Amino acid sequence: MQLVAIGTVRSPLTDRASAPKQGDEGAPEAWLIVDAAYAPGLDGIAAGDELLVLTWFDRAERDVLRVHPRGDVTRGEQGVFNTRSPDRPNPIGLHRVTVLEIDGARLRVRDLEALDGTPVVDLKPVLRTVAER
Amino acid sequence: MQLVAIGTVRSPLTDRASAPKQGDEGAPEAWLIVDAAYAPGLDGIAAGDELLVLTWFDRAERDVLRVHPRGDVTRGEQGVFNTRSPDRPNPIGLHRVTVLEIDGARLRVRDLEALDGTPVVDLKPVLRTVAER
Repeated sequence: MQLVAIGTVRSPLTDRASAPKQGDEGAPEAWLIVDAAYAPGLDGIAAGDELLVLTWFDRAERDVLRVHPRGDVTRGEQGVFNTRSPDRPNPIGLHRVTVLEIDGARLRVRDLEALDGTPVVDLKPVLRTVAER
Repeated sequence: MQLVAIGTVRSPLTDRASAPKQGDEGAPEAWLIVDAAYAPGLDGIAAGDELLVLTWFDRAERDVLRVHPRGDVTRGEQGVFNTRSPDRPNPIGLHRVTVLEIDGARLRVRDLEALDGTPVVDLKPVLRTVAER
């Protein structure tokens, strides 16, 4: 089960300590730079769309099974699968973003809290009703 | 970027052709069998919780960039990142399920359309409001 990077995050966020915990908590605009080889996979995505971005938290620790939710030590430890901690056995980030602009194989997005340089491994549409799929 | 299986899907679904396209389109109940080594990561998860299950579609094709949405050839081809096709460069499945029962490190869930034997790579809580995180 080997992942390939389909692209990379370009963001002003470079430091995990200062990044928001979730994208809707003040993340700056960012770009998804999709590799040219995967550009045909973007066909049909338009500005205004909501996407789920899957990333690989390349700076995460993978041997963590219990954490304080949101890093808040006043809260009791939880199993990591009951939290969104980036430190987890498979550090896959899941981010719901809105596409603001598409420039070739580059997507400008809102609400992405991933750090600059984070590999992107998948994009999926947000599902609405069956009729809209 | 190498994934590890944290568990396995046990489901009556064994055949991709007869599985529903989405979990809320008639998927049968299934079990997530989490490996004992990862059981501490489940702490805090309870019956009634909604979870996002990330799986590895081990029977998918990875060299696909354009598909007919939902396999419907009457619909025009789309970029694969604008669809939920299991055939994609990184065949990670994303499933929203409800936990019905927890038995040790086994979780009985509703609305999972993954096939029997599919590796599970992550579990995440569904986020609600900030106050509930």
